[in-house]
Amino acid sequence: MRGYTMNKDDYIKRLRRIEGQVRGLQRLVDEDTYCIDILTQISSVNAALNSVAVGLLHGHLGHCVTDAINTDQVEGAAKVDEATAAIARLLKS
Amino acid sequence: MRGYTMNKDDYIKRLRRIEGQVRGLQRLVDEDTYCIDILTQISSVNAALNSVAVGLLHGHLGHCVTDAINTDQVEGAAKVDEATAAIARLLKS
Amino acid sequence: MRGYTMNKDDYIKRLRRIEGQVRGLQRLVDEDTYCIDILTQISSVNAALNSVAVGLLHGHLGHCVTDAINTDQVEGAAKVDEATAAIARLLKS
Amino acid sequence: MRGYTMNKDDYIKRLRRIEGQVRGLQRLVDEDTYCIDILTQISSVNAALNSVAVGLLHGHLGHCVTDAINTDQVEGAAKVDEATAAIARLLKS
Repeated sequence: MRGYTMNKDDYIKRLRRIEGQVRGLQRLVDEDTYCIDILTQISSVNAALNSVAVGLLHGHLGHCVTDAINTDQVEGAAKVDEATAAIARLLKS
Repeated sequence: MRGYTMNKDDYIKRLRRIEGQVRGLQRLVDEDTYCIDILTQISSVNAALNSVAVGLLHGHLGHCVTDAINTDQVEGAAKVDEATAAIARLLKS
Repeated sequence: MRGYTMNKDDYIKRLRRIEGQVRGLQRLVDEDTYCIDILTQISSVNAALNSVAVGLLHGHLGHCVTDAINTDQVEGAAKVDEATAAIARLLKS
Repeated sequence: MRGYTMNKDDYIKRLRRIEGQVRGLQRLVDEDTYCIDILTQISSVNAALNSVAVGLLHGHLGHCVTDAINTDQVEGAAKVDEATAAIARLLKS
Protein backbone atom coordinates (compact mmCIF):
# COMPACT_ATOMS: atom_id res chain seq x y z
CA MET A 1 0.00 0.00 0.00
CA ARG A 2 0.86 3.62 -0.40
CA GLY A 3 2.22 6.09 2.08
CA TYR A 4 -0.67 6.59 4.52
CA THR A 5 -0.35 3.57 6.77
CA MET A 6 2.57 3.61 9.16
CA ASN A 7 3.83 0.88 11.40
CA LYS A 8 3.14 0.91 15.12
CA ASP A 9 6.49 2.48 16.00
CA ASP A 10 5.96 5.31 13.53
CA TYR A 11 2.55 6.12 15.01
CA ILE A 12 3.97 6.15 18.51
CA LYS A 13 6.90 8.31 17.42
CA ARG A 14 4.51 10.79 15.77
CA LEU A 15 2.21 10.86 18.78
CA ARG A 16 5.19 11.39 21.09
CA ARG A 17 6.16 14.40 19.00
CA ILE A 18 2.58 15.70 19.21
CA GLU A 19 2.66 15.20 22.98
CA GLY A 20 5.82 17.32 23.05
CA GLN A 21 4.10 20.02 20.98
CA VAL A 22 1.17 20.09 23.43
CA ARG A 23 3.62 20.36 26.33
CA GLY A 24 5.27 23.20 24.39
CA LEU A 25 1.87 24.92 24.14
CA GLN A 26 1.62 24.92 27.94
CA ARG A 27 5.02 26.59 28.16
CA LEU A 28 4.02 29.16 25.53
CA VAL A 29 0.88 30.04 27.53
CA ASP A 30 2.82 30.11 30.79
CA GLU A 31 5.42 32.48 29.33
CA ASP A 32 2.73 34.80 27.89
CA THR A 33 3.85 34.16 24.32
CA TYR A 34 2.07 36.22 21.68
CA CYS A 35 -1.37 34.62 21.04
CA ILE A 36 -0.94 34.40 17.28
CA ASP A 37 2.21 32.30 17.69
CA ILE A 38 0.32 29.93 19.99
CA LEU A 39 -2.54 29.69 17.47
CA THR A 40 -0.06 28.87 14.68
CA GLN A 41 1.33 26.08 16.84
CA ILE A 42 -2.22 24.75 17.49
CA SER A 43 -2.83 24.66 13.71
CA SER A 44 0.34 22.61 13.39
CA VAL A 45 -0.76 20.13 16.10
CA ASN A 46 -4.19 19.81 14.43
CA ALA A 47 -2.54 18.99 11.10
CA ALA A 48 -0.20 16.45 12.72
CA LEU A 49 -3.13 14.73 14.47
CA ASN A 50 -5.15 14.62 11.25
CA SER A 51 -2.23 13.01 9.50
CA VAL A 52 -2.14 10.28 12.17
CA ALA A 53 -5.91 9.86 11.81
CA VAL A 54 -5.67 9.48 8.03
CA GLY A 55 -2.92 6.87 8.47
CA LEU A 56 -4.98 4.88 10.97
CA LEU A 57 -8.05 5.10 8.75
CA HIS A 58 -6.07 3.83 5.76
CA GLY A 59 -4.75 0.90 7.75
CA HIS A 60 -8.24 0.21 9.09
CA LEU A 61 -9.84 0.20 5.63
CA GLY A 62 -7.00 -1.90 4.19
CA HIS A 63 -7.02 -4.49 6.97
CA CYS A 64 -10.08 -4.70 9.27
CA VAL A 65 -12.66 -3.54 6.74
CA THR A 66 -11.08 -5.51 3.87
CA ASP A 67 -10.92 -8.67 6.00
CA ALA A 68 -14.56 -8.27 7.06
CA ILE A 69 -15.66 -7.82 3.45
CA ASN A 70 -13.69 -10.90 2.44
CA THR A 71 -15.26 -12.94 5.22
CA ASP A 72 -18.89 -12.00 5.19
CA GLN A 73 -21.14 -9.53 3.37
CA VAL A 74 -23.14 -8.42 6.41
CA GLU A 75 -20.05 -7.99 8.57
CA GLY A 76 -18.37 -6.06 5.74
CA ALA A 77 -21.31 -3.67 5.47
CA ALA A 78 -21.29 -3.14 9.25
CA LYS A 79 -17.58 -2.23 9.16
CA VAL A 80 -18.22 0.24 6.31
CA ASP A 81 -20.97 1.89 8.40
CA GLU A 82 -18.69 2.11 11.40
CA ALA A 83 -15.78 3.58 9.40
CA THR A 84 -18.11 6.15 7.80
CA ALA A 85 -19.34 7.25 11.22
CA ALA A 86 -15.72 7.72 12.35
CA ILE A 87 -14.97 9.81 9.24
CA ALA A 88 -18.06 11.94 9.88
CA ARG A 89 -16.86 12.60 13.45
CA LEU A 90 -13.39 13.60 12.22
CA LEU A 91 -14.93 16.01 9.67
CA LYS A 92 -16.85 17.77 12.44
CA SER A 93 -14.03 17.95 15.01
CA MET B 1 -27.02 -0.28 5.21
CA ARG B 2 -27.57 2.56 7.62
CA GLY B 3 -28.62 6.11 7.00
CA TYR B 4 -25.59 7.67 5.24
CA THR B 5 -26.13 6.54 1.68
CA MET B 6 -28.98 8.20 -0.15
CA ASN B 7 -30.42 7.41 -3.52
CA LYS B 8 -29.62 9.53 -6.56
CA ASP B 9 -32.77 11.62 -6.26
CA ASP B 10 -32.05 12.44 -2.63
CA TYR B 11 -28.55 13.62 -3.47
CA ILE B 12 -29.84 15.81 -6.27
CA LYS B 13 -32.58 17.19 -4.03
CA ARG B 14 -30.04 18.03 -1.33
CA LEU B 15 -27.65 19.62 -3.82
CA ARG B 16 -30.49 21.66 -5.31
CA ARG B 17 -31.24 22.98 -1.83
CA ILE B 18 -27.54 23.82 -1.34
CA GLU B 19 -27.56 25.61 -4.71
CA GLY B 20 -30.51 27.66 -3.46
CA GLN B 21 -28.61 28.49 -0.27
CA VAL B 22 -25.60 29.70 -2.30
CA ARG B 23 -27.93 31.82 -4.43
CA GLY B 24 -29.36 33.14 -1.16
CA LEU B 25 -25.82 34.09 -0.07
CA GLN B 26 -25.47 36.27 -3.17
CA ARG B 27 -28.69 38.05 -2.29
CA LEU B 28 -27.53 38.53 1.32
CA VAL B 29 -24.27 40.09 0.09
CA ASP B 30 -26.11 42.21 -2.46
CA GLU B 31 -28.52 43.54 0.19
CA ASP B 32 -25.64 44.33 2.60
CA THR B 33 -26.93 41.86 5.18
CA TYR B 34 -25.04 41.83 8.45
CA CYS B 35 -21.80 39.85 7.96
CA ILE B 36 -22.34 37.55 10.92
CA ASP B 37 -25.66 36.37 9.46
CA ILE B 38 -23.93 35.60 6.16
CA LEU B 39 -21.19 33.68 8.00
CA THR B 40 -23.80 31.65 9.86
CA GLN B 41 -25.38 30.76 6.54
CA ILE B 42 -21.96 29.74 5.13
CA SER B 43 -21.47 27.40 8.14
CA SER B 44 -24.82 25.86 7.32
CA VAL B 45 -23.89 25.31 3.64
CA ASN B 46 -20.56 23.75 4.71
CA ALA B 47 -22.36 21.34 7.00
CA ALA B 48 -24.89 20.42 4.29
CA LEU B 49 -22.08 19.76 1.78
CA ASN B 50 -20.17 17.63 4.28
CA SER B 51 -23.28 15.59 4.87
CA VAL B 52 -23.56 14.92 1.12
CA ALA B 53 -19.85 14.02 1.04
CA VAL B 54 -20.25 11.53 3.91
CA GLY B 55 -23.21 9.94 2.12
CA LEU B 56 -21.27 9.57 -1.13
CA LEU B 57 -18.26 8.19 0.73
CA HIS B 58 -20.44 5.63 2.48
CA GLY B 59 -21.96 4.52 -0.81
CA HIS B 60 -18.51 4.39 -2.39
CA LEU B 61 -17.04 2.24 0.39
CA GLY B 62 -20.10 -0.02 0.42
CA HIS B 63 -20.24 -0.51 -3.33
CA CYS B 64 -17.15 0.35 -5.42
CA VAL B 65 -14.54 -0.42 -2.76
CA THR B 66 -16.39 -3.52 -1.51
CA ASP B 67 -16.78 -4.85 -5.07
CA ALA B 68 -13.10 -4.24 -5.82
CA ILE B 69 -12.07 -6.06 -2.63
CA ASN B 70 -14.35 -8.98 -3.54
CA THR B 71 -12.88 -9.16 -7.04
CA ASP B 72 -9.18 -8.75 -6.56
CA GLN B 73 -6.77 -8.02 -3.73
CA VAL B 74 -4.59 -5.54 -5.63
CA GLU B 75 -7.57 -3.66 -7.06
CA GLY B 76 -9.13 -3.58 -3.56
CA ALA B 77 -5.98 -2.05 -2.06
CA ALA B 78 -5.86 0.55 -4.84
CA LYS B 79 -9.46 1.58 -4.12
CA VAL B 80 -8.67 1.88 -0.41
CA ASP B 81 -5.72 4.15 -1.24
CA GLU B 82 -7.88 6.30 -3.47
CA ALA B 83 -10.70 6.61 -0.92
CA THR B 84 -8.19 7.54 1.80
CA ALA B 85 -6.75 10.30 -0.39
CA ALA B 86 -10.29 11.68 -0.93
CA ILE B 87 -10.93 11.64 2.85
CA ALA B 88 -7.61 13.45 3.45
CA ARG B 89 -8.66 16.14 0.96
CA LEU B 90 -12.04 16.58 2.65
CA LEU B 91 -10.36 16.92 6.07
CA LYS B 92 -8.18 19.77 4.77
CA SER B 93 -10.89 21.66 2.86
CA MET C 1 -5.85 46.34 4.16
CA ARG C 2 -4.44 43.14 2.75
CA GLY C 3 -5.91 40.66 0.34
CA TYR C 4 -8.72 39.01 2.34
CA THR C 5 -11.50 41.54 2.01
CA MET C 6 -13.09 41.78 -1.41
CA ASN C 7 -15.59 44.27 -2.69
CA LYS C 8 -19.26 43.39 -3.03
CA ASP C 9 -18.98 42.52 -6.72
CA ASP C 10 -16.08 40.16 -6.08
CA TYR C 11 -18.03 38.30 -3.40
CA ILE C 12 -21.03 37.97 -5.68
CA LYS C 13 -18.82 36.80 -8.56
CA ARG C 14 -17.20 34.19 -6.34
CA LEU C 15 -20.54 33.00 -4.98
CA ARG C 16 -21.95 32.79 -8.50
CA ARG C 17 -19.03 30.54 -9.44
CA ILE C 18 -19.69 28.39 -6.33
CA GLU C 19 -23.37 28.20 -7.32
CA GLY C 20 -22.23 26.92 -10.72
CA GLN C 21 -20.02 24.32 -9.05
CA VAL C 22 -22.94 23.09 -6.94
CA ARG C 23 -25.09 22.88 -10.08
CA GLY C 24 -22.21 20.93 -11.64
CA LEU C 25 -22.33 18.52 -8.68
CA GLN C 26 -25.97 17.76 -9.46
CA ARG C 27 -25.04 16.94 -13.05
CA LEU C 28 -22.14 14.73 -11.87
CA VAL C 29 -24.51 12.78 -9.60
CA ASP C 30 -27.15 12.59 -12.32
CA GLU C 31 -24.63 11.21 -14.85
CA ASP C 32 -23.33 8.63 -12.32
CA THR C 33 -19.85 10.17 -12.32
CA TYR C 34 -17.26 8.27 -10.32
CA CYS C 35 -17.80 9.08 -6.60
CA ILE C 36 -14.19 10.08 -5.96
CA ASP C 37 -14.40 12.77 -8.65
CA ILE C 38 -17.55 14.14 -7.04
CA LEU C 39 -15.85 14.15 -3.62
CA THR C 40 -12.87 16.03 -5.07
CA GLN C 41 -15.26 18.63 -6.43
CA ILE C 42 -16.97 18.93 -3.01
CA SER C 43 -13.55 19.57 -1.40
CA SER C 44 -13.05 22.34 -3.93
CA VAL C 45 -16.44 23.94 -3.16
CA ASN C 46 -15.69 23.75 0.59
CA ALA C 47 -12.36 25.53 0.07
CA ALA C 48 -13.99 28.22 -2.10
CA LEU C 49 -16.70 28.83 0.52
CA ASN C 50 -14.13 29.04 3.30
CA SER C 51 -12.22 31.60 1.31
CA VAL C 52 -15.36 33.73 1.02
CA ALA C 53 -15.97 33.31 4.76
CA VAL C 54 -12.42 34.44 5.60
CA GLY C 55 -12.87 37.50 3.38
CA LEU C 56 -16.16 38.43 5.03
CA LEU C 57 -14.67 37.90 8.48
CA HIS C 58 -11.74 40.13 7.64
CA GLY C 59 -14.03 42.88 6.41
CA HIS C 60 -16.23 42.46 9.49
CA LEU C 61 -13.29 42.73 11.92
CA GLY C 62 -11.83 45.67 10.01
CA HIS C 63 -15.08 47.62 9.76
CA CYS C 64 -17.97 46.67 12.09
CA VAL C 65 -15.86 45.42 14.98
CA THR C 66 -13.27 48.19 14.61
CA ASP C 67 -16.01 50.85 14.50
CA ALA C 68 -17.72 49.40 17.56
CA ILE C 69 -14.42 49.37 19.49
CA ASN C 70 -13.78 52.97 18.47
CA THR C 71 -17.26 54.02 19.59
CA ASP C 72 -17.80 52.27 22.88
CA GLN C 73 -15.97 49.70 25.02
CA VAL C 74 -19.02 47.60 25.89
CA GLU C 75 -20.28 47.53 22.31
CA GLY C 76 -16.76 46.61 21.12
CA ALA C 77 -16.59 43.68 23.52
CA ALA C 78 -20.04 42.49 22.38
CA LYS C 79 -18.92 42.54 18.73
CA VAL C 80 -15.78 40.56 19.65
CA ASP C 81 -17.96 37.95 21.38
CA GLU C 82 -20.24 37.71 18.39
CA ALA C 83 -17.36 37.37 15.89
CA THR C 84 -15.74 34.68 18.04
CA ALA C 85 -18.98 32.69 18.09
CA ALA C 86 -19.15 32.90 14.28
CA ILE C 87 -15.54 31.66 14.02
CA ALA C 88 -16.31 28.77 16.38
CA ARG C 89 -19.27 27.78 14.17
CA LEU C 90 -17.09 27.87 11.03
CA LEU C 91 -14.46 25.67 12.70
CA LYS C 92 -17.09 23.02 13.48
CA SER C 93 -18.86 23.05 10.11
CA MET D 1 -16.71 39.11 28.36
CA ARG D 2 -18.46 35.88 27.70
CA GLY D 3 -17.32 32.33 28.17
CA TYR D 4 -14.61 31.90 25.53
CA THR D 5 -11.62 33.52 27.18
CA MET D 6 -10.12 31.59 30.05
CA ASN D 7 -7.45 32.64 32.48
CA LYS D 8 -3.90 31.37 32.12
CA ASP D 9 -4.37 28.56 34.65
CA ASP D 10 -7.45 27.29 32.86
CA TYR D 11 -5.61 27.15 29.52
CA ILE D 12 -2.71 25.27 31.11
CA LYS D 13 -5.10 22.88 32.86
CA ARG D 14 -6.90 22.19 29.56
CA LEU D 15 -3.64 21.70 27.67
CA ARG D 16 -2.36 19.36 30.38
CA ARG D 17 -5.51 17.28 29.93
CA ILE D 18 -4.96 17.27 26.15
CA GLU D 19 -1.34 16.19 26.72
CA GLY D 20 -2.69 13.29 28.80
CA GLN D 21 -5.09 12.37 26.00
CA VAL D 22 -2.22 12.31 23.48
CA ARG D 23 -0.20 10.12 25.86
CA GLY D 24 -3.29 7.91 26.09
CA LEU D 25 -3.33 7.66 22.28
CA GLN D 26 0.21 6.25 22.36
CA ARG D 27 -0.90 3.60 24.85
CA LEU D 28 -3.95 2.76 22.70
CA VAL D 29 -1.70 2.27 19.64
CA ASP D 30 0.83 0.28 21.66
CA GLU D 31 -1.89 -2.04 23.01
CA ASP D 32 -3.37 -2.56 19.50
CA THR D 33 -6.68 -0.99 20.50
CA TYR D 34 -9.37 -1.12 17.84
CA CYS D 35 -8.67 1.64 15.26
CA ILE D 36 -12.13 3.15 15.41
CA ASP D 37 -11.76 3.75 19.15
CA ILE D 38 -8.44 5.51 18.54
CA LEU D 39 -10.03 7.66 15.81
CA THR D 40 -12.87 8.62 18.17
CA GLN D 41 -10.29 9.72 20.71
CA ILE D 42 -8.44 11.76 18.05
CA SER D 43 -11.74 13.54 17.21
CA SER D 44 -12.07 14.37 20.89
CA VAL D 45 -8.51 15.79 21.08
CA ASN D 46 -9.15 17.88 17.93
CA ALA D 47 -12.32 19.33 19.48
CA ALA D 48 -10.51 20.10 22.76
CA LEU D 49 -7.67 21.86 20.90
CA ASN D 50 -10.12 23.88 18.82
CA SER D 51 -11.87 24.98 21.98
CA VAL D 52 -8.53 26.24 23.37
CA ALA D 53 -7.86 28.01 20.05
CA VAL D 54 -11.25 29.74 20.11
CA GLY D 55 -10.60 30.89 23.68
CA LEU D 56 -7.19 32.30 22.78
CA LEU D 57 -8.60 34.00 19.71
CA HIS D 58 -11.36 35.60 21.77
CA GLY D 59 -8.86 36.90 24.30
CA HIS D 60 -6.62 38.13 21.48
CA LEU D 61 -9.44 40.03 19.74
CA GLY D 62 -10.70 41.44 23.05
CA HIS D 63 -7.28 42.58 24.27
CA CYS D 64 -4.41 42.87 21.74
CA VAL D 65 -6.54 43.73 18.73
CA THR D 66 -8.88 46.02 20.71
CA ASP D 67 -5.91 47.85 22.26
CA ALA D 68 -4.25 48.28 18.87
CA ILE D 69 -7.47 49.68 17.38
CA ASN D 70 -7.82 52.08 20.32
CA THR D 71 -4.23 53.26 19.91
CA ASP D 72 -3.76 53.67 16.21
CA GLN D 73 -5.73 53.02 13.03
CA VAL D 74 -2.86 51.53 11.01
CA GLU D 75 -1.73 49.29 13.85
CA GLY D 76 -5.34 48.18 14.40
CA ALA D 77 -5.71 47.21 10.74
CA ALA D 78 -2.43 45.27 10.87
CA LYS D 79 -3.65 43.30 13.89
CA VAL D 80 -6.93 42.51 12.10
CA ASP D 81 -4.96 41.21 9.11
CA GLU D 82 -2.79 39.05 11.35
CA ALA D 83 -5.77 37.61 13.28
CA THR D 84 -7.56 36.82 10.01
CA ALA D 85 -4.52 34.94 8.72
CA ALA D 86 -4.45 32.89 11.95
CA ILE D 87 -8.17 32.07 11.57
CA ALA D 88 -7.58 31.02 7.93
CA ARG D 89 -4.80 28.66 9.09
CA LEU D 90 -7.05 27.12 11.75
CA LEU D 91 -9.83 26.57 9.20
CA LYS D 92 -7.44 24.60 6.96
CA SER D 93 -5.77 22.51 9.66
